[in-house]
Amino acid sequence: MSASSFGQRLVITTFGESHGPALGVVIDGCPARVPFDLPLLHRELARRRPGGVTATGDSITSARLEGDEPEILSGVYEGLCLGTPIAMLVRNQDARSQDYAAIAKQPRTGHADDVWRAKFGHSDPRGGGRSSGRETVARVMAGAVAQMILRQLVPGLRVLGFARQIGPLRLSDAEVEALSQQDLSVADIDAFAARMPQRERSVEVAQLLVEAKQAGRSYGGLVELWLCGVPPSLGQPVFHKLKADLAQAMLSVGATSSVELGDGADVKGAEGSVFHRDEARPERYGGIRGGISTGERIVLRVACKPTASVLDVARTGRHDPCIVPRAIPVLEAMAYLVLADHVLWRRTDGMNIK
Amino acid sequence: MSASSFGQRLVITTFGESHGPALGVVIDGCPARVPFDLPLLHRELARRRPGGVTATGDSITSARLEGDEPEILSGVYEGLCLGTPIAMLVRNQDARSQDYAAIAKQPRTGHADDVWRAKFGHSDPRGGGRSSGRETVARVMAGAVAQMILRQLVPGLRVLGFARQIGPLRLSDAEVEALSQQDLSVADIDAFAARMPQRERSVEVAQLLVEAKQAGRSYGGLVELWLCGVPPSLGQPVFHKLKADLAQAMLSVGATSSVELGDGADVKGAEGSVFHRDEARPERYGGIRGGISTGERIVLRVACKPTASVLDVARTGRHDPCIVPRAIPVLEAMAYLVLADHVLWRRTDGMNIK
Amino acid sequence: MSASSFGQRLVITTFGESHGPALGVVIDGCPARVPFDLPLLHRELARRRPGGVTATGDSITSARLEGDEPEILSGVYEGLCLGTPIAMLVRNQDARSQDYAAIAKQPRTGHADDVWRAKFGHSDPRGGGRSSGRETVARVMAGAVAQMILRQLVPGLRVLGFARQIGPLRLSDAEVEALSQQDLSVADIDAFAARMPQRERSVEVAQLLVEAKQAGRSYGGLVELWLCGVPPSLGQPVFHKLKADLAQAMLSVGATSSVELGDGADVKGAEGSVFHRDEARPERYGGIRGGISTGERIVLRVACKPTASVLDVARTGRHDPCIVPRAIPVLEAMAYLVLADHVLWRRTDGMNIK
Amino acid sequence: MSASSFGQRLVITTFGESHGPALGVVIDGCPARVPFDLPLLHRELARRRPGGVTATGDSITSARLEGDEPEILSGVYEGLCLGTPIAMLVRNQDARSQDYAAIAKQPRTGHADDVWRAKFGHSDPRGGGRSSGRETVARVMAGAVAQMILRQLVPGLRVLGFARQIGPLRLSDAEVEALSQQDLSVADIDAFAARMPQRERSVEVAQLLVEAKQAGRSYGGLVELWLCGVPPSLGQPVFHKLKADLAQAMLSVGATSSVELGDGADVKGAEGSVFHRDEARPERYGGIRGGISTGERIVLRVACKPTASVLDVARTGRHDPCIVPRAIPVLEAMAYLVLADHVLWRRTDGMNIK
Repeated sequence: MSASSFGQRLVITTFGESHGPALGVVIDGCPARVPFDLPLLHRELARRRPGGVTATGDSITSARLEGDEPEILSGVYEGLCLGTPIAMLVRNQDARSQDYAAIAKQPRTGHADDVWRAKFGHSDPRGGGRSSGRETVARVMAGAVAQMILRQLVPGLRVLGFARQIGPLRLSDAEVEALSQQDLSVADIDAFAARMPQRERSVEVAQLLVEAKQAGRSYGGLVELWLCGVPPSLGQPVFHKLKADLAQAMLSVGATSSVELGDGADVKGAEGSVFHRDEARPERYGGIRGGISTGERIVLRVACKPTASVLDVARTGRHDPCIVPRAIPVLEAMAYLVLADHVLWRRTDGMNIK
Repeated sequence: MSASSFGQRLVITTFGESHGPALGVVIDGCPARVPFDLPLLHRELARRRPGGVTATGDSITSARLEGDEPEILSGVYEGLCLGTPIAMLVRNQDARSQDYAAIAKQPRTGHADDVWRAKFGHSDPRGGGRSSGRETVARVMAGAVAQMILRQLVPGLRVLGFARQIGPLRLSDAEVEALSQQDLSVADIDAFAARMPQRERSVEVAQLLVEAKQAGRSYGGLVELWLCGVPPSLGQPVFHKLKADLAQAMLSVGATSSVELGDGADVKGAEGSVFHRDEARPERYGGIRGGISTGERIVLRVACKPTASVLDVARTGRHDPCIVPRAIPVLEAMAYLVLADHVLWRRTDGMNIK
Repeated sequence: MSASSFGQRLVITTFGESHGPALGVVIDGCPARVPFDLPLLHRELARRRPGGVTATGDSITSARLEGDEPEILSGVYEGLCLGTPIAMLVRNQDARSQDYAAIAKQPRTGHADDVWRAKFGHSDPRGGGRSSGRETVARVMAGAVAQMILRQLVPGLRVLGFARQIGPLRLSDAEVEALSQQDLSVADIDAFAARMPQRERSVEVAQLLVEAKQAGRSYGGLVELWLCGVPPSLGQPVFHKLKADLAQAMLSVGATSSVELGDGADVKGAEGSVFHRDEARPERYGGIRGGISTGERIVLRVACKPTASVLDVARTGRHDPCIVPRAIPVLEAMAYLVLADHVLWRRTDGMNIK
Repeated sequence: MSASSFGQRLVITTFGESHGPALGVVIDGCPARVPFDLPLLHRELARRRPGGVTATGDSITSARLEGDEPEILSGVYEGLCLGTPIAMLVRNQDARSQDYAAIAKQPRTGHADDVWRAKFGHSDPRGGGRSSGRETVARVMAGAVAQMILRQLVPGLRVLGFARQIGPLRLSDAEVEALSQQDLSVADIDAFAARMPQRERSVEVAQLLVEAKQAGRSYGGLVELWLCGVPPSLGQPVFHKLKADLAQAMLSVGATSSVELGDGADVKGAEGSVFHRDEARPERYGGIRGGISTGERIVLRVACKPTASVLDVARTGRHDPCIVPRAIPVLEAMAYLVLADHVLWRRTDGMNIK
């Protein structure tokens, strides 16, 4: 298995440096005759893009222009997946390598430039090369294909991510419980600033981030992911428990520093006869038991560090004051990839499984 | 890659059900001529065993007797690893399948019996089969070999785990900071009840668990792991970032529900110019930047759910009131496996690397 | 992937040295509820064993006693596979390491002792360690499980191997054509000396090998394998073409030096308009086109070198004058493993595939 | 592992259909700071191209125009490999899909169109999609990078392929023995028609193929590969013996039908005391013993079927009357990939290995 590959049945291999010619992905293992939904691919890329689809626009994200026009190189013919590898790329259009000339001399605080240079002994000063968040564009392309597969094999399955916390602003348990009573869609969430889907909080967040951007501040945050409509029996014994693969997927994304399932870290103070018998809260297990999906909703929370770019290039306007809004489609993509992988893996679990 | 395999360069494959004839592991990729340290293997197995080495003895762990005498089947000759697969097993001695006859009729709350039966369509009622914590004995054997490899390749590297929290009892940041000033060894930690290495807290924990065992209660908890002496440049781009592989490793263990690196989930409220510039706290990044080890200490925290067995078999005395003390050597083993894997992987990173 | 693992969906990992405590295999990916056929396992082990089931008995094989009593360690419960890893081993009973004391001083011609020692820098003089043909006992155990899977998923599929040539004695094309008109079974072939299923030739072969054994001679030979009842559409694009995986499987066995598919090396002199239009001979393609099975019979031929042991330990009677008879169940096992792997892989090829 | 990936340490993943937008490869595991030799890449692509570098020019190859201008998308910066995935592609320029309209209705004899369509249930009529020989352009790009790596790590290693036989014309053992006394280079071989490096035979071959092309005939043939300067100790136990990986590599190429190592299929008639003691012929083992390289020259022979295109598109001039000349750089590329993979794998064999 290569360092840039992910998955066991649906295997993706990504490539590309932040300031090289292109970034892309090869997806192998997509079943033949899955309809290829090009608008879905565009939509997901747009959701990740700076200055994308949030209500308050680019004032709360990086000003870097990324056209991200995807080019399909193989694996698709007349709107259907061929069963052969699907290769896709986007070109880097607005690299402005010159901005990074200064970096060559001095590593940027909080960035990984120096760590990577020490590892590989090279001298690419351009935006962190492959440690840059730009790398995630390939994940989003791959996640869109995973989503296309799942639509065919598990209609009704969907992944919803939202900002649970941004810096000091947090949705309470009661507010989240209220959200879960609604039939939220991705579009609903995208309509809120910074993807925090609660009216008052969203207004506060927009204000916080606009000011942060002007003042050169940045904030950490917490993404919450709901994996809805996941069929039971996904996950494999021991090392490829569904929770283990989700954890790897989430923490493979830059800037993340923790992942929790269900009650997550809160279980550390729990008493067993209360915890296990609290049948009013089926989600205390997070939708996974023994490493295997139960058919209940899977709940994940992923913490993100404050962006470091703010310290260095704040004056250029080319940074995000909080990465959470743009991390959401990336983490959703990783969840789709894990789910599609395990849905395909499930096909060989037993004698009578389709 | 199989579901029961872990690692890319040092590849382990485990097998065995909780109440079948034996559990074991095949380890492939161990370099030839690593000295095989049999006492180390025994010591690590003893540390995981119920009623093992803690000061207060078996009163705070399951009464299940597990001799866990390891048998080396291959890969070792005259005290040296041969470069061929190392296969090891332990027999199941005290399975008492009859205790589990009742389970066949009714799934146990909080256990995965029903989930696994639904997945595989089988009828093994015996203690959860491969979802049982008994499976971890194979991980501990493998982790001991990883430790033997690392001793040769990275002298000074060691992994220290301790109980950061057990139910309501928690070591404060200041207490942990004090610990980190000492030169703690594994033996030091093992000398404390429940492996919480602080005198007062340890006494309280012993009392809490003894009472819990008698009353049929159980507690969740939090394990903290320090990976000391890790060389820089471990970890691979994108999907095999060191943090991603550690996350998969930790969440592949049953009963775990979250993993945090460095400041972990606390970063969600952080402001960037404070967080990144706090040079007095190099560990805010957890010893990993851009997915690559920096040479600093790596700090992980893993939450464990309260054991569920307490609800069902409490009267037999065959359960642990908190899994944290026994989870520690298992999580340490997983950390050793990830580190050994990446130390070997590092050998092919560049032209001039040994 | 580890060096001792094989397969992508049905993944086996073998272990064990020729003169260590045991040899065995872990099989991961076997679907749950496949009936475990223990007599089949015993039968296949017996077919590989020296002095096994051929009509003329041990006079044409090594005198080494190998009880090869398989022990099932995991993955099977009440006669059904559990969906968890199946681990099996056989103990080494008649190792006679003392016979090999001399080898420590001087490498044996044609053996790999010196090559392996140079590679791993170790000093195990005992029968070549893991390069010994004894290693194949693990493959036969794994192959038996593959056969159990295929019986459920592709009834009617079977692999038939026979000795096409032993030293100077060879079945002609006409003789083989005659064989293919019969409805040969494995038992039919095993009834002939050295598994050359033609009465006159079989008598000659028996005489040749008895004399060779007495005189300390050995012969090379050619195994022909028929894979009958293979469904169409097995094989994957590009690197996992069915022929590529079969070639790796066959040449991973010691003593083999070539593999041919269909008309094999004879195609080198063929003219295309004759070759491709010869519809009376569908097997000129060997049952595989574009790397994918066509549904026709797959024909493979594998050449084996003369055994080298004859040169060194001839006087002890512990060698095979020709490895072909005993290689047949091993090569059949490898073919079953490749087929089971691809039958499972096939399940994720497309939308509508069970 | 995906179907379109190859290798364990140097992992390549190819993509692209014969008549889609592009074909390419992602190479992961190339050590950082390997000099990227662009002219070498161009040279190898030119050697594979129809109408390439042979003395008699395009009259003996397909008239299809393939510019094959490689585009480097990632992994290279200022002439050095970065240690990140190297992605490269070539565009399809001269696809002439319209030529293939007729194919949609009727499968082409000897081609795999129908087999692939049955497998994947799709309808791409365009030249066999991914089963086309056009796919090999990605292998040649990858092989060139493998060659760049080996130049750094094992100076002096080189792979030489030549046409041992084309239809009825064959180099005798004595002629090949004479060749091996010379210090042949790739350029020397390329100077001969059809890469058969013997003056008289080369003239005959040129005549044979020119006539075949005019008459719509095609021939099978035999490629011989010499792997010179291979260090000892390459190859891994059991399933990744060097010969096993080479066999998979060779038979993963379309049109191949057999692979032989050293004396290959000829060993089937050999007597052991003669074969093993023939020290004047060290290459009877083919440079590999026990699956591990010995340091001697490795000799492989690969048979190729007559091209089938001749039957269908002969009038358009777009076919090769014998695939052997163009298969040579492809098979060389596969050999370089296997060797580079094992040279990197070797780094983790033991304690003291660089």
